[in-house]
Parts: sequence; C-alpha cells; structure tokens
Amino acid sequence: MFYHDGKLQYHVRVDKPNPHFAKMLQQAIGGIEGEMRVCLQYLFQAWGARGPKKYRDMLLETGTEELAHIEMLATAVALNLEGAPTETKSNFTAHPVVGAILGGMDPRHVLSAGLAAMATDANGVPFNGSWVVASGNLAADMYANVMAESTGRVLATRLYEMTDDPGMKDMLAFLISRDTMHQNQWLAVLEEIGGLTGVHPIPNSMPQSVELPEFNYTFVSTRRDPVENPEERWTTGQAPDEKGAFSFQPAMPIGGEPMLAPPKPEGHAQNEQMMEAAT
Amino acid sequence: MFYHDGKLQYHVRVDKPNPHFAKMLQQAIGGIEGEMRVCLQYLFQAWGARGPKKYRDMLLETGTEELAHIEMLATAVALNLEGAPTETKSNFTAHPVVGAILGGMDPRHVLSAGLAAMATDANGVPFNGSWVVASGNLAADMYANVMAESTGRVLATRLYEMTDDPGMKDMLAFLISRDTMHQNQWLAVLEEIGGLTGVHPIPNSMPQSVELPEFNYTFVSTRRDPVENPEERWTTGQAPDEKGAFSFQPAMPIGGEPMLAPPKPEGHAQNEQMMEAAT
Amino acid sequence: MFYHDGKLQYHVRVDKPNPHFAKMLQQAIGGIEGEMRVCLQYLFQAWGARGPKKYRDMLLETGTEELAHIEMLATAVALNLEGAPTETKSNFTAHPVVGAILGGMDPRHVLSAGLAAMATDANGVPFNGSWVVASGNLAADMYANVMAESTGRVLATRLYEMTDDPGMKDMLAFLISRDTMHQNQWLAVLEEIGGLTGVHPIPNSMPQSVELPEFNYTFVSTRRDPVENPEERWTTGQAPDEKGAFSFQPAMPIGGEPMLAPPKPEGHAQNEQMMEAAT
Amino acid sequence: MFYHDGKLQYHVRVDKPNPHFAKMLQQAIGGIEGEMRVCLQYLFQAWGARGPKKYRDMLLETGTEELAHIEMLATAVALNLEGAPTETKSNFTAHPVVGAILGGMDPRHVLSAGLAAMATDANGVPFNGSWVVASGNLAADMYANVMAESTGRVLATRLYEMTDDPGMKDMLAFLISRDTMHQNQWLAVLEEIGGLTGVHPIPNSMPQSVELPEFNYTFVSTRRDPVENPEERWTTGQAPDEKGAFSFQPAMPIGGEPMLAPPKPEGHAQNEQMMEAAT
Amino acid sequence: MFYHDGKLQYHVRVDKPNPHFAKMLQQAIGGIEGEMRVCLQYLFQAWGARGPKKYRDMLLETGTEELAHIEMLATAVALNLEGAPTETKSNFTAHPVVGAILGGMDPRHVLSAGLAAMATDANGVPFNGSWVVASGNLAADMYANVMAESTGRVLATRLYEMTDDPGMKDMLAFLISRDTMHQNQWLAVLEEIGGLTGVHPIPNSMPQSVELPEFNYTFVSTRRDPVENPEERWTTGQAPDEKGAFSFQPAMPIGGEPMLAPPKPEGHAQNEQMMEAAT
Amino acid sequence: MFYHDGKLQYHVRVDKPNPHFAKMLQQAIGGIEGEMRVCLQYLFQAWGARGPKKYRDMLLETGTEELAHIEMLATAVALNLEGAPTETKSNFTAHPVVGAILGGMDPRHVLSAGLAAMATDANGVPFNGSWVVASGNLAADMYANVMAESTGRVLATRLYEMTDDPGMKDMLAFLISRDTMHQNQWLAVLEEIGGLTGVHPIPNSMPQSVELPEFNYTFVSTRRDPVENPEERWTTGQAPDEKGAFSFQPAMPIGGEPMLAPPKPEGHAQNEQMMEAAT
Repeated sequence: MFYHDGKLQYHVRVDKPNPHFAKMLQQAIGGIEGEMRVCLQYLFQAWGARGPKKYRDMLLETGTEELAHIEMLATAVALNLEGAPTETKSNFTAHPVVGAILGGMDPRHVLSAGLAAMATDANGVPFNGSWVVASGNLAADMYANVMAESTGRVLATRLYEMTDDPGMKDMLAFLISRDTMHQNQWLAVLEEIGGLTGVHPIPNSMPQSVELPEFNYTFVSTRRDPVENPEERWTTGQAPDEKGAFSFQPAMPIGGEPMLAPPKPEGHAQNEQMMEAAT
Repeated sequence: MFYHDGKLQYHVRVDKPNPHFAKMLQQAIGGIEGEMRVCLQYLFQAWGARGPKKYRDMLLETGTEELAHIEMLATAVALNLEGAPTETKSNFTAHPVVGAILGGMDPRHVLSAGLAAMATDANGVPFNGSWVVASGNLAADMYANVMAESTGRVLATRLYEMTDDPGMKDMLAFLISRDTMHQNQWLAVLEEIGGLTGVHPIPNSMPQSVELPEFNYTFVSTRRDPVENPEERWTTGQAPDEKGAFSFQPAMPIGGEPMLAPPKPEGHAQNEQMMEAAT
Repeated sequence: MFYHDGKLQYHVRVDKPNPHFAKMLQQAIGGIEGEMRVCLQYLFQAWGARGPKKYRDMLLETGTEELAHIEMLATAVALNLEGAPTETKSNFTAHPVVGAILGGMDPRHVLSAGLAAMATDANGVPFNGSWVVASGNLAADMYANVMAESTGRVLATRLYEMTDDPGMKDMLAFLISRDTMHQNQWLAVLEEIGGLTGVHPIPNSMPQSVELPEFNYTFVSTRRDPVENPEERWTTGQAPDEKGAFSFQPAMPIGGEPMLAPPKPEGHAQNEQMMEAAT
Repeated sequence: MFYHDGKLQYHVRVDKPNPHFAKMLQQAIGGIEGEMRVCLQYLFQAWGARGPKKYRDMLLETGTEELAHIEMLATAVALNLEGAPTETKSNFTAHPVVGAILGGMDPRHVLSAGLAAMATDANGVPFNGSWVVASGNLAADMYANVMAESTGRVLATRLYEMTDDPGMKDMLAFLISRDTMHQNQWLAVLEEIGGLTGVHPIPNSMPQSVELPEFNYTFVSTRRDPVENPEERWTTGQAPDEKGAFSFQPAMPIGGEPMLAPPKPEGHAQNEQMMEAAT
Repeated sequence: MFYHDGKLQYHVRVDKPNPHFAKMLQQAIGGIEGEMRVCLQYLFQAWGARGPKKYRDMLLETGTEELAHIEMLATAVALNLEGAPTETKSNFTAHPVVGAILGGMDPRHVLSAGLAAMATDANGVPFNGSWVVASGNLAADMYANVMAESTGRVLATRLYEMTDDPGMKDMLAFLISRDTMHQNQWLAVLEEIGGLTGVHPIPNSMPQSVELPEFNYTFVSTRRDPVENPEERWTTGQAPDEKGAFSFQPAMPIGGEPMLAPPKPEGHAQNEQMMEAAT
Repeated sequence: MFYHDGKLQYHVRVDKPNPHFAKMLQQAIGGIEGEMRVCLQYLFQAWGARGPKKYRDMLLETGTEELAHIEMLATAVALNLEGAPTETKSNFTAHPVVGAILGGMDPRHVLSAGLAAMATDANGVPFNGSWVVASGNLAADMYANVMAESTGRVLATRLYEMTDDPGMKDMLAFLISRDTMHQNQWLAVLEEIGGLTGVHPIPNSMPQSVELPEFNYTFVSTRRDPVENPEERWTTGQAPDEKGAFSFQPAMPIGGEPMLAPPKPEGHAQNEQMMEAAT
C-alpha cells in the first residue's frame, strides 16, 4: 500500500518560466527514458517478484521514490508554463517572438491541460505501457533497469545543458544524482547474484548444453566481401561471461532456401498464385 | 512525496488459479477502465491543480489509494497464473483441455512476464497515456472521474460475475465498494462547486453571451425525413442547467458548400487537379 | 443508413489563414477531446444499444450531427493552410518569420496531406479507437458523453481565445453552443433514468448488498501521517447518491504482505531466484 | 452535412450466434482493412479535395455509404454475441466447450462493451488514425483506395469462408459485391485522369527531368552474388508508364562510407567516443 | 540471409545543416509513406510468399534495396543536425533566431538521440507495424506497393521543394527516381498476372457468382435528395474490370431497423435498460 | 548498403504445424523482446554512430544478422500455419478441438495475412518504433543491447520449453546460441570502453561535481515507517562504479509543498477555481 504527504522530494524552482523547456521536460515524464517508465517498471517488477523477498522490497522502495520524481517534474512543467502565450496571432511579422514561443511549445499544454503536465513525451506522444519491462528474470530486469537509468541520466544531463534557469539546473542536478545512485543500485544486485560471470548468459537457468557450440561465441560477420578476423575484443579471447572463447566467422546461409506450401484455396490468394504454384 | 509499506490494502486470495481470469483481470489494470488510468489521472490532476488547494489534496489522497489497487490486481494476476501450462502441444485432439486453457490465456503472461501482471489490457494492448485526462478545468475533470469510476465499476461487476472463485469475489467486492465511494466523492465536489445548475455549461467561465442562441439549447434532428418534435425530455422544457429551454429543429445546412483553393504547384497534386481546378 | 448533402452545417470562414491555428484545430478533430471521438462514440453506443429504443435513436441523431462538425473543422484546417510556406530556408537569420511559421505548423500538413486536415491531434498523434467508450451501461455512457462534451467545450473555448480571426471565432461560437446543448442533452437522459440518486452507484443493477459496508462510503486518507476527519463534503454527511453516509478513515493495509510462489523452472528465471526462493 | 434514417443498408441476420465470429468481424470494422478506415479515408479525401469538384462529390457519396457498412457490421457483432458465456469456470476439464468459446472470443466484448462492437480490430487493437490516407494527390489517393478495397475484399471473402451461418454469408456477399463496385469506381477515376500512362509516375506534376536517368527505370538487384539480367517483365522492355525502358543493374554503393562529425560535448556521449573520435 | 558493405547506395551530402529539415526527413524514414514501411512491407511479403517463386525473389531484391534508403535518410538526418542548438534560452526576445530553430526542430533529436535519426515520423510519432501490409494475395499486395511508392514519391517531391540545399536535392532526386522505377515495377507484376481485367475484382479466386448482381457494379448515391444518374465514368458504361456495367442507384435502406436483444442481467446494464427493454 | 541471397541463416523445419505456436513466435518477431527491435536498434545505432568507427562497423554487422533472424522466424510462422483451420463452426460442442485451435491462434494470421507472419507481437499488437533505442551515448546503448539480448534469450528459452516440435527446438537452440554471443559481444564493448568503473555513471562525460553529494550514493528508503540501514549490498560499502560509498536514508520531503499560480482566465478553468484561488 502507498501513502503521500503532498510535499516534494526536492526543490522545484523556476526562475524564468519557459514554455519551450516545459515541452522538453515532458520527455523526462512520459518519454521512454522518463520517470513514468521507471516508476511503473520497478513497481511491476516488485509486484511480480518471485524468489528472494529482499529484491521485491528494494524494487518497491525505489519504484515509490520514482513516483516522487514524476511529481517534481510535473510541478516543473506547470511552473514553466506560467506566463505562456495563449493566443496565436495571424500577423507573424509583427509578433515574431510570440510566434517563436508558440512554435516551440506543445499546443496541448494550453489546449488540453490548461498549463500543466501531461502523460506524454516531448512530442506529445502518449506514454506507452509496452515500455514497462518486467520479465520475471531478475538479471534481465536489472539490465533493463541499468539501461533505463543510463538513458535517463543521459536525458537529464542534456536537459541540464538546455536550460539557463538556476532553479531548473538545481532540480536536474538532483535527478542526475539519483540516477547515479540507481545505476549503482541495480549493478549491486547484479554483483550480488553472480556478477558478469555468474549471471550470463541470461537466463542462467537454461543449461548451455542446449546451445550449438559453433554459434554461441562466434562473431558472425555479414560483410558482403568476407574479411579476416580483425582481432577485436569481441572476435578473439575469452568472452566476458568466461563460458567460452570468441571466434570469428563470415556469414554463411546454411538453412537453404525456404519453401512454403502453395496458398490454400479458402485463403483467396489470386488464381495466378495457385495455378503457377509449382513454377 | 510517496511512501509504501509493502502490504496490500485488502485481501487478495486465489483459491483456484485460472489463467483465463488472469487475462480478464488485466482489463482492470491496464485497460481504459482500469486502475492505472484512474491512479495517474487523479495524480496528474493534483499535480496540475490550480485554485483551491483542498481539491489538490483530495486528488492526491485518492490517486495514491488507486496505486494500491493496481498492486492488489497485479498480485491477483500473478496468483491466478500459478499453475498455468507452459507448453503448447501440437496434438490438440489428445489435449483439448490444455489447448483450451492456452487458447484463453495471454501468451505474454508466460513469454514476456514469467507468470506476472503487465501494463496492458485484457487483449495485451499496452496502457496508453492519452487516457489520463487532466484538463485544468475542475468540473470537466470531475466528470472524467465520475465516468472513469462508472465504467470501472461496471467492469468490476462483470469480472465479479465471470468468476466462481471466492477469494476473487471478495477482492472484487472490495473494489466495487471503493468505486461506489469514489463515484460519490467526485459527485460531492461537483455539488460543492455549484451542482448541475452551477457547473454547466462547462466551463462556466466562458460567458454564454458568446453563444449563438438559436443553437445552444436546440436538439438538432439529423433524420433524413424531418419529423415533428417528439416532446422528449431533451427536446422540450427547461434544460438541466436551467440556463435555457430545449427546442427542436430539423438539421439544415446553413454553411453552404465549402470551396477550397486549387492545389499549390509545389504540393504536387496531379496535373489534372490543377488544370481542371476551375471546373 | 446515412446520407449527405455536401454542405456545411454552419459557416466556415477564414479571414487570415494561419497555419499555426490549423495545427491547433487538429486537436478538435482527432484529439481525445475532439469530434471524431464523440461522433464515433455516440454511433457505437447507438449500434450496441440494448434497452429502450429512444436512446438508440437519440444517439444516432447526435452522432450523425458530430460528423458534420468534423467536416466543418476539416474545412477550417484546409482554409487556414492556404498560403502556408512550403520551403524551409537554411538561413534562419534572414527569414525569421518564415522560420517561426514553419516551426509552429505541423510539417505533415504539407508533407503528408498537401494542405488539408488529418485524422490526428494537434501534435500529429493519430486518432485512437480506444477513446470510443460504449460500455453497454446507459448511465456510464451518458457520463462518458457529458465528460466528452465538457472537455470538448473547454477545448473550444481555448481555441476561441487563441484566434483573432472573426470567421474562426464565429465557427467556434457555434461549436461552443452545440456543446452546451449536448452537455444538457446527456444530463437530461441521466435525469430521466433516475437522476443522481437513481443512477448511482453505476451500475445500479448490481445489488449493493455485495458491497463491503466499511468501505463503500468511506473516504480513505492515504496521508503518511494520519489526520482527523477534515469534515469536508466528501468525508461527512449524506453521500450524493443518498444510499449511504460518508465517513473518514486513515488508510490501513489489511491485506498483509503478498507472497507469490517461487518461479517455475520452465519460466527460466535466474537460478538465484529459484535457489533462494525460501529466503 | 449528414443525415440518417436508423435503418440498415442491407439485411443483417444471425442464425446461430457465434462469439468467435464476432471477434473476427471486428477486423472488418476497426482493422486496417476495415470499414472505419475506408469511411474516414474517403471523407477526409473529400474534405481536403482541391481541383475538380466532381471527385470531392463522389468521395462524399461513398464515404457516407461506408458509414452504413460499419453500422451493419457493428450490428452483426452485437447479434453474434447474444448468447455468449459470461462466466469463466476454473474447472476446464468439466467445461471444455465453454472454455473453448471463452478462449476464442474477445474478453472485452463482455468486459468493456457489454456484448457489442468496439472500434478495434480482431485482436482488440484500437483503430488508428494513421491509416486514413489523404495525400492531396488524387492519383495517389485513388491507389490508396483501390488497395483498401482490395485488401478489404480479400478480408470479406475470408470471413465468408470462415462462417457457416446463412445470414452472415448473405451479409458478406453484399459487402463483397460493394467492394467489387468500389474497386472499379476508383479504377474508373484513374482511367479518367489519364490511365496508367497518364497518371504515372505519381505525382505527374514533378517534371521527370529532375530524375537521374541511370536510376529511374533500372531494376537494382541486391543479390550478394550478381546475376545476369533475368529478362523478366520488370527488367527489360518498355515500362508500364511508357516513359522509359526497364534495365537491370547489380547494386553498387556509389555513395561511399558516411562520416559523421564527432559528438558535441553538450550531447554527453561517453568520453571514449569523444576522445577517440579521430580513430 | 543479408549482407552489408557499410557504404551508401547514393551520395548523401548536406551543404547547410538545417535541423528543421532533419525533422521533415523523418517522415521519409518512419512515417507511413516512408522507407521503413516499404522495406518491411516488401520483406514480409517475400517471407510469406506462396505461389510462383519469382515474385518472392523480386520482393527480396527491392526490400533489401529499401533498407539502403533508410540508411541514406538516417545519414541525412544526422548531417542536418550537426550544428543544431542545444540550449533553449529563456529570453526569446534576445534570441529570436535560436528560438525559431528550436521551435522547428524535433526536441528528441537532441534529448533522445544525440543528433541522429529515430524510428519515428516528422512529428515524433513512432513507426507502427500495422502499416506493413502483406495480405497473402499478390494483386492486393502489388496495389499496396504501388500506393506506397505513389505516396512516397509525392512525399519525396514535397521534400525536394522544401529544401534549397544542393546535396539534399541531389539525394532526393535519386529517391524520386527509384520511386519511379518501383511504381513501374509493381505495375509490371500486375500486368503480368492479368492486368486490369485479369486481376479484378481482387481476389479473383472468389467466384463472382457469390455476388449480388444488383449491387456489384452499382454506384450508390447517398445524397439526401436523390438525383438523376450524372452519367459519370463510374455510373455508366463498362466497368474497368470488364466484368459488368456500371449503373446508378439512390441509396435505399433495405435492411430495416436493427433490433438487439435486451441486456443480459450479468452484463450489468442499468436497471432502466432492462425494465423498459420492451418499450 | 545491403545485399541478400534468399537463403536462411540456419535450418527452419516444422515437423508438426501448430497455429498456437505460430502466434507465440510472433513475440520473437514483432514483440518488444523480438528481432525487429534488435535489428533496427543496432542499425539505427550504427547510422547515428559518432566516435570510433569500429563500433559503427560492428553494429552494422550484427544489425544485418538480426534481419536474417526475422527472416527465419517469419518462415517458421508461415510453416506452423500450414494446416490451420480456416472455418469457425457455430457448433462448438461438435467441434471442440477445432474450437480450441481457433481460439488459440491469431485470427489475423488467416484474415489479414493469408497464413503468414506479421509485424506484430503475440497478441497482434503492432511493432512500435519507440522501442528502437539509439541514444548517441555508446555505453547507454550497449546496456540497451545487453538488456534486449537478455530479455530476448529469456523469451527464446520459454519458446523452447513451449514446443515439442524437434525442428522448432533446433531453430530456437540456434537463436539462444546467438543471444549468448550477442550478450557477450555488447559486454565486451563495455569492457573495452572502461568496464564498470570506467563507464559509470553513464554518461561519464558529465563531471560528477555537478551532483549533490548527499544524494548520489544514498539509498532512499520510502518505507512509511523508517527502518534502520539493512546493511544490504546497495546500502553500504563501495558502490560498483567505485566513485562513492553507499549510504542509507529514510525519505524526507525537502522540497516542501508546491504552489501553482491561479488559473489564467483565458484557460477557462471553472469560475470556482479562480474565485477561491486564494483559499
């Protein structure tokens, strides 16, 4: 169960409202790199967690924190929109600055939301539940989380560079800091459940004896004109999971040409497909 | 800011796991009538609330509660999936029951989630952020909330009918009860801010003098063959908002035929469109 | 069955074409508050209507009218796009006004549609069929309709404020007027089928005896630090549906901690999840 | 403007309700090959039509007819759902037939729609406005229409084969017939505006002098191991548009290797990308 | 199987980087008229091809070529973004040109992609797999391909008009040329499998005896006020498929009024719907 | 540029066609864990690669290989659909096996695709371009790739368990093997560009001096009732990136209560929001 106190986890201050920046902040709310995704991802992982209870608990802790980040960002969007123009002038030559502001803001921030945040990304594309990854495999999920916090921190640093507003820079410094923590947190779990050599290949519960040994540590080069082994880290030497040694192989089509049956009459392909099927 | 305790708001007990029912419960999680929508809708309304603070506070209260409902339903899905088959037999004749179960469950509950809930509806369609309505107009938002709780309670009653599992019936009775409360709660706000005659037409901050008096309380009948005023509640008598009296009018096209300019050459319509534009 | 006459329901006149405003008008066509949604919503409600025939008939009437509103708005978009620039200059310093116009318009209005309307919202996000609510419960559907007309009228008033074009203001005044009527129309149905106390809780066909009396008229406060009953309209006194009296209760997790079974081997969680499952 | 009469364009009779078939019929309503797409496509093409008025008029005629087809199919879905089970039994062994029916039907037909049609496809995926093609180029649009009626007629014939219900077969025979007409209708427009040699290449308003003559009638073979000209219809002889002669050429990369600038510091790539950028 | 050489099929040169134009080019990558759609459409058609093998082979050839077009366009986007501003100034009056550029570019080109292309359209709406049409009927698929290349060439010509960059004009001239070829290529297949009179009505494997002769070559006029046969190409004379003669008929609703059964109790409509069902 | 040879990378053999399994295989084609995502993700990363060329080259190599995996799976889907029923019987009691098969298969495999693969997931939800992650930061992208190959290998192992068809098991063993290689391959890049301590926090090009030291290595516990530091791997000791030491802190809302300005009149909130704004 969940509780609230109506306060913000960290300061959200906007010194110079900027509707362009409000639009950009939406990416950190409803974008694929954003806080709705990590909040829901950690919570769904917790709610479906099978196995050691401590991971479920930790996921609940941080999923709940991320909800407070959405709250901060939604507040930041609303504050950046205060002062936004709500009229589009037909005479652009006379109002180039208003035109530029309107052009750069999300029109739905006025039309649909009345100067507040929405559950969308920076282009107004709605948040999509498919981004919530909770596979039931702890290691795969931890990588999904490291990845989300990595693209999330990249996003936050870019937003930090995009603004010259001290309040926004302070808030983003906080979010960047939390992303540092969360990257480390998921890495700590990966370390605890085996580290590189213990967790890979994920899932580690499928015996590798099922694998085909000529393919599972082989770099397949799809170059049209085959080349020699370039002796890169991924074509030679021990693999990071320490379960095999990298090798190198030009791509070869060993599966032959596929052959499908002719169309079934009741599927109503064209007659020409059925008549000439033997061609 | 938000907090958790890792416990469920109400009992979630599954006596006879049923993967078909797990699929159906997804509608109450990630469907348009579901708990993700109301949770996020109330929270986004709170975060963007402008005006009396008490409504912001109330929205936070209930938005936070709805998060606990997602948690309950996600747990119910996971419990219903325990015991689900994880193999599809090619010989259906020999395994009709397994076939029927597999046919009725969401394959992604096994393939993508490892027997747990997802952020999708009963057909596996992902939750969509566009469903989160927060217009900045309190009355419009309250109607969005009444509507969400009404379709939500209809859904919960149908789920109640679909199951013969006592634990699931108990959980759904709880959710039905909360929907009763929440319908009343949003209605109470509507009452407080003016009731039917006070809040309508929404927004009540646009002076009705802008309206065209021949159209704003007139039922327009689009029947091909015009009929007499049927003297229904919506064609005669005082309107519910008590700002006008209903009348009845067969549809008439007073706007005439639209006429667009011919295509601009650089838009590259076909030549025939440009040549014959005067036709 | 449906018929047309090729004329517009009301005047659509654009005095000063404005491609920014064309983009904004798209919200009223293909956005969640827009006319495609209400048109299809009323028609699907009609086509699935079970029960008294007069509601089916009324829904057909107004669903058909809304199609004429899409037609008006699509015409308005096309007229606002006449004169739009179709070239993006690399030298913005020399062409700041052209740059601002291009920045503010939907590029697909040129690229995909050749200066005409599309089935999308103001950000170019396509209309989504999930917005078409037709639940089979008349009262829930009427609330969905009041809500749609309320957010729709809020949108129309904002569009009215955004433009200084007399023709567009006239068209929007018409649409605002129709939204006034339609809000009242759906309210009239709600009144006819029982009014507040008759229709709630929706659905009224589920006996309230199934409900848990300690939860169905209780405001659950999720505040981290419990507070006293604030004696608000929604925490004390008779509920609007007059079936119960509001009470107030701090949130309590009576469901306990959920416990899922350990992962099934064939679901291929990590070994660490399965080994330590008893922890 | 639009009108209705509440009657169906053709008979819709269901002799043996079949919820499986109801689900399949949804593809003809809200699928990409379905009637919502053609209805809206023809109407949006009409509303944005620039050039000879008669094409606008014809598009309105048929767009309006397609709305009646949605109405027929929605009615057919509702009738096929009458008698559908509304309870999922946990004991499948005892109820294999109920299980199979439930497994094959769309759960949202009960849960969300109360035994009626929805604006979705046969998998419950919502109708998507991106399918509404209206390019502003009459010939491109006519091909979009021929394509829609062709995949639509393929769908209708497959549905015809899937059912053994005489009423449904009769309705589908009607829809198949209308698709025959509509295929011919759009072909008739293409014939009128120039036929194969007149309309192609579309758009015919871009002078072909802009084209690169070594590429505009040349079949590029991307086979890894170059082959001789196979002397197919599309590699030799006059092209169908009669503006050039087909030739044959093995693919050659004449554009060289692309070279992007190193990352900008404020984009926050990894340091290793920036340090080694000259490598 | 597939191979690459890391080089571009044709020159991609950007003389004056223009982030507005980068946004527009996205329509040609991830838009419905774009190269991702044709690439995947031709490949999925090939992979599912049943019937004469030579069509499968040809689809593979050109599907593979289209992948090289995505590569070219993605490179063009990246080059156009070099030099894009990465800071939004709060003081628009002082920086109108920066404001206009930022307003016109896709913010995610900086925030999400670090100055590179994305799998989205010009409004940032993600590519959607529903656009990949592969029906199993060769003629329907060929029309889907002619249509894709027609809207694609219209798009490319509009992009050609939008830019004054010589390198971009050269690249687009190449793409326009390839679209000319591909339009002809699919038309050549249609010619080979029967031409207009042989392929229509599609599918030609459904005997036309199933059709209702009063409807399959009849133009149905949905005008509210019936008119005489206007003697257009599509209302009189032989149809293009030469299987029938066009006729003209005012719309008539011969299906009568639909009548659905009253709601089932367990679907929980309102009581008023069930009580008055006989009304 | 790209080339093909029309052959499969590995054997695709279906001994006992199974339309249920065809549906499940779709997850590996068009699902978020599927091959379309990795193919396009690696290619878009390559096309936007800035920095050392060797990573661009490697991404092209493997992106091209993944296209061959889509080809294999699309072939496997088509082969599994051969023999699928194409008729839904109304009499389920007499045909329980046919009913179960139809219930378990994707109806669009017949209706839309004519027994072939589609660009969708196992529930028919279309592939979505938002899943293609290419951030411009090499380390973030490598984690996105490790994550994709991890969830992809989990999916492949589950599919392996779901089938008893020897040909399908052989094909999946191949795909599992390739996922092993690709997990290692992206890990090898991470090792080469710094390993855990070198790449984190991602992006490593933002100086950590911008971070707030009280938040960047602190586990924030959102438990309602604060607890002591549980001395877990992620609450104490050196963090995996070796740039800080973990600490533990109960959540505290230091940002205070947010306060938004009252609604702007032209945004048309309700009057009650504006009048009482000072409350």
